[in-house]
Amino acid sequence: MVNDYSRILNEGLRERVVPADVAASWIENGMTLGLSGFTRAGDVKAFPDALVKRAETESFKVNVFTGASLGSDVDKMFAEAGIISKRLPFQADATMRREINDGAFHFVDQHLSHTAEMLRQKVLPKVDYAILEAVSVKEDGTIIPTTSVGNSLAFAQHADGIIVEINESQPRSLEGVHDLYTLGQQGSRDPIPLVSPEDKIGTAGIQVDPDKIIGIIFTSQLDSPSTIVPPDQDTRLIAGHLIDFLKEEVEIGRLPQNLVPLQSGIGSVANAVFHGLLESDFENLSVYSEVLQDAVFDLIDAGKVNFASGCSITLSEEKMKQVFSNFDNYRNHLVLRPQEISNHPEIIRRLGLISINTAIEMDIYGNVNSTHVRGTKMMNGIGGSGDFARNSRVGIFVTKSIAKDGKVSSIVPFVSHVDHTEHDVDIIVTEQGYADLRGLAPRERVELIISRCAHPSYREQLYDYYQAALERGGHTPHVLEEALSWHIGYEKEGTMQKLVRA
Amino acid sequence: MVNDYSRILNEGLRERVVPADVAASWIENGMTLGLSGFTRAGDVKAFPDALVKRAETESFKVNVFTGASLGSDVDKMFAEAGIISKRLPFQADATMRREINDGAFHFVDQHLSHTAEMLRQKVLPKVDYAILEAVSVKEDGTIIPTTSVGNSLAFAQHADGIIVEINESQPRSLEGVHDLYTLGQQGSRDPIPLVSPEDKIGTAGIQVDPDKIIGIIFTSQLDSPSTIVPPDQDTRLIAGHLIDFLKEEVEIGRLPQNLVPLQSGIGSVANAVFHGLLESDFENLSVYSEVLQDAVFDLIDAGKVNFASGCSITLSEEKMKQVFSNFDNYRNHLVLRPQEISNHPEIIRRLGLISINTAIEMDIYGNVNSTHVRGTKMMNGIGGSGDFARNSRVGIFVTKSIAKDGKVSSIVPFVSHVDHTEHDVDIIVTEQGYADLRGLAPRERVELIISRCAHPSYREQLYDYYQAALERGGHTPHVLEEALSWHIGYEKEGTMQKLVRA
Repeated sequence: MVNDYSRILNEGLRERVVPADVAASWIENGMTLGLSGFTRAGDVKAFPDALVKRAETESFKVNVFTGASLGSDVDKMFAEAGIISKRLPFQADATMRREINDGAFHFVDQHLSHTAEMLRQKVLPKVDYAILEAVSVKEDGTIIPTTSVGNSLAFAQHADGIIVEINESQPRSLEGVHDLYTLGQQGSRDPIPLVSPEDKIGTAGIQVDPDKIIGIIFTSQLDSPSTIVPPDQDTRLIAGHLIDFLKEEVEIGRLPQNLVPLQSGIGSVANAVFHGLLESDFENLSVYSEVLQDAVFDLIDAGKVNFASGCSITLSEEKMKQVFSNFDNYRNHLVLRPQEISNHPEIIRRLGLISINTAIEMDIYGNVNSTHVRGTKMMNGIGGSGDFARNSRVGIFVTKSIAKDGKVSSIVPFVSHVDHTEHDVDIIVTEQGYADLRGLAPRERVELIISRCAHPSYREQLYDYYQAALERGGHTPHVLEEALSWHIGYEKEGTMQKLVRA
Repeated sequence: MVNDYSRILNEGLRERVVPADVAASWIENGMTLGLSGFTRAGDVKAFPDALVKRAETESFKVNVFTGASLGSDVDKMFAEAGIISKRLPFQADATMRREINDGAFHFVDQHLSHTAEMLRQKVLPKVDYAILEAVSVKEDGTIIPTTSVGNSLAFAQHADGIIVEINESQPRSLEGVHDLYTLGQQGSRDPIPLVSPEDKIGTAGIQVDPDKIIGIIFTSQLDSPSTIVPPDQDTRLIAGHLIDFLKEEVEIGRLPQNLVPLQSGIGSVANAVFHGLLESDFENLSVYSEVLQDAVFDLIDAGKVNFASGCSITLSEEKMKQVFSNFDNYRNHLVLRPQEISNHPEIIRRLGLISINTAIEMDIYGNVNSTHVRGTKMMNGIGGSGDFARNSRVGIFVTKSIAKDGKVSSIVPFVSHVDHTEHDVDIIVTEQGYADLRGLAPRERVELIISRCAHPSYREQLYDYYQAALERGGHTPHVLEEALSWHIGYEKEGTMQKLVRA
């Protein structure tokens, strides 16, 4: 493979090109690495491979900070190699998940907008090296990111040194799509001047002193395609209910005809909801989100979405080919921002988003668990769901009403872990229907959630619990002895169903 | 009593002065009332008295929206009179609390920054009348609030009509202390131009069309004095640990010498912490908070606090006399804002506050319960604690490690209700010490929380639980069958102590 030096416009920096194993050899035990990458997009690929190879003959551990989840099996390889000391702020890999739940290393589950702020506050370990995928490096040292921005700007600013990984498979036409805005120190910071999803407020790349770039490596490995599955009957029903809700909001004058900017979390359910908009009458939509998945590009293709602001582009293999071979059709409809801007409470509240995120389970009062299976086992992490749900205009959580062939109800008496409290959950949608919880007291929410969202096979059990709880009284009635009995029942009997009250 | 008509500068409006019982007679069954008042300050007094009197002979119910808790026993009288249909967003009255927990009416517990936004979004019942305490009404109809701003601006803007209650006991020198800023509709809203606690960005009063003021009543009843108790040994210890923490943060260069703007929740513990600053070496401090309690004024008196921005002034009887008889000494050090500005995520994050709020209980992983006793019974409400904790630079929660003479541990295996998730809790302080949880994974937090914050009489029990949980594994290990057993044990045995493991 011949490296494309034309992607390094600063001549002095061309001398810093090294093989990936040389860059990996610079890493010392105990270091903290800030890696580019957000939801399988724009992660470095050659460097992690080389680092894992080094671990075959050497024993070391590092902290790995990223934007969000990585692709290219990097998290899997890191976990298997046992080289991680601390990992943050998000992951979504099955092997890594298992290791986290076994306590093999420390995982810090953070709001995606918080990590950069914590680096600035110096309350996280100092980043030794930022290792960032790039389309190119400009004459002045500016690094042009690829398919995600993530925390790369913060890592570059706070690291002692930067290793750039130029990916020749990422089209140079990505240049100009990014908008890098740096927040000042808290207390001497101006308002963020963004008032509309399409506003550009920063620079086209990550501006750094070229001397800080200590090495450049090359790769041509593609981003991992997204793993989302196409809509199924249930997710189509969820999308249908959600669109019904939005139509009613427009009808009664609460939302404008073209809605307000939309956010959707990663995953198949959220993607299905966006797909549902394709067949709806909604037009002139805009997106202000984290990850831009297939459905966003389908909506752009259909002329339904005019503009999409995100932090990463994560596509299926087929969609990736289509989008990047015709990128000029999309570049004027897109911007990629640091996750601290895409997920910033200031912007989310100012724009007044409709946010759609996936829950693992919800309780009869509207508390949501997004992260912990049966209160203990980490799935992926809270991601941006807290940033959006708390500050959005309409905070929506979606889930299928049952899981595990009906053995698990997603609506339970008492969630086994809380990521989003009753104060932050506006609308709940399952394939059964939707419940609008805004402005309702806990006792008002119960009937709505059970009758509209719970699976019919669990409704009687839920009412039974609530009736028993009501006899005890309280603002939020519970029978504490039975509150977690559904989860315990599943662990012991393999089902939440036909639970016999003690 | 002769009414002071000089407080009504608009001559036409003088004709709308009516006795309170006449104004109360305008209220119809099913109406929604927006009342001024925030933490016992600036609430209307004559109007509620008259409304309750009317309920002696008539049966009706109304929704009562306020800024926060009311003084003058208004919430007590309303609850006893049985005239409330829905109450939001906060209360702190013993009688009302009992009625809420009995399910007598609906209480909606909201983030204090959210209510005004929800009125704008039209997702709450429409406000029929705004009933607002005022120092005076200007020529152009502008209403000058008294000792709190709360949600009064939003109520005035969204109500069909306004009833002004002029309080002659509130000094006219309060005029000029308020800063009323109106947020535009989401999506067409500018950044809030506030970049420092002392910035004034709005108007001196609530600007309304004089025709919207349908009645004016007079009162001269004083605000209820605050009910906070002076620091005791435990709260002094809490203050000491917290100040030790702040000193260390300054020493290692994370915080500047004069710290950053401070927020403290209402209550005796938070007030004690601010009192602790009096004897510290910290100087040139500033406050950006909701309620300004006695200690803030003591700090101003001592020259330690240069400026305090709040939403209300809530003082003890003695301090009230001192402050309001010398108000010119304070007026240049103060501003009162709408609660949607004092508690706005945009501002809290921009300024980078240190926020100090009180918890009912915390668990070994750092989740905090601020509202529900044993998961069911409402105490007061979440108030502003969520607005601040999530967005502050340093989010601190304080509590005494035990309650009920040691029968209750404030550190438990699993909180019975979650208001602040592990993602939003930076520092925990009890009289035992403090735990800095920033950047730590769940398993890293446990040892810190137990050894530094739990009461010695509960440490072994907590370690026992954690050891058993560890054997089960998981990112956040729990033994679900025992997770709530401490709360259940207290209900059954009257103590959380000497619990025998099943």
